[in-house]
Amino acid sequence: MHALLLIAHGSRRQKSNDEVRALANRLKTHSSVQYPIIHAGFLELADPLIPAGIQQCIQDGATSITVLPYFLNSGRHVVEDIPDIVSNSQKAYPDIDIRISSHLGASDVMIDLIIGLASSSTSNR
Amino acid sequence: MHALLLIAHGSRRQKSNDEVRALANRLKTHSSVQYPIIHAGFLELADPLIPAGIQQCIQDGATSITVLPYFLNSGRHVVEDIPDIVSNSQKAYPDIDIRISSHLGASDVMIDLIIGLASSSTSNR
Repeated sequence: MHALLLIAHGSRRQKSNDEVRALANRLKTHSSVQYPIIHAGFLELADPLIPAGIQQCIQDGATSITVLPYFLNSGRHVVEDIPDIVSNSQKAYPDIDIRISSHLGASDVMIDLIIGLASSSTSNR
Repeated sequence: MHALLLIAHGSRRQKSNDEVRALANRLKTHSSVQYPIIHAGFLELADPLIPAGIQQCIQDGATSITVLPYFLNSGRHVVEDIPDIVSNSQKAYPDIDIRISSHLGASDVMIDLIIGLASSSTSNR
């Protein structure tokens, strides 16, 4: 059973963390066939942290997990921190296939998304 | 002539700012008919700041500008800071129609983008 774990940075502002959790819930509604298990997790400042998020997926019955970094830039968090944490969890669960997808900002669909949003603009005058 | 101004937060890490500029350049290639003028701008920490970005669009011949907040969460920057700055620029250029679009994280396409990215994952084992 395949799980998707959406990883955001985490914020001191609770509402930002709740927005990520709400996005994970919307994903659940739209993608339950591809990903019967979907959770949000955080690099820091909010729960669950990445290892606990991975554990949650496994407790729900996941045999493989895709970790998706919900980050716009390919900074240290994306290039080093998340891979390091995931690699440690992988060692703890050798029977589970844990994969990291490209980060959000790397998506080819970003161009279409931006142009679509721009057309939704309202006048400031 | 319509312009699109992509606004990121701005980072001390120069590479992150360059990624935003590169995205604006990719947008130029793909959307030159809808938006003959496209620039990147920053809320802080990088150039051009928003007022300078708006000025740049106008110098290039823009008669209307869509400002797009390249932000994932609807925090203070999206709800207050960017609208305040844009509102001040609007007063300085009453003949230019300056609009703010929804921020990136609000896009309905985000769900499809995430599912598409997740399928690009590679194994960590």
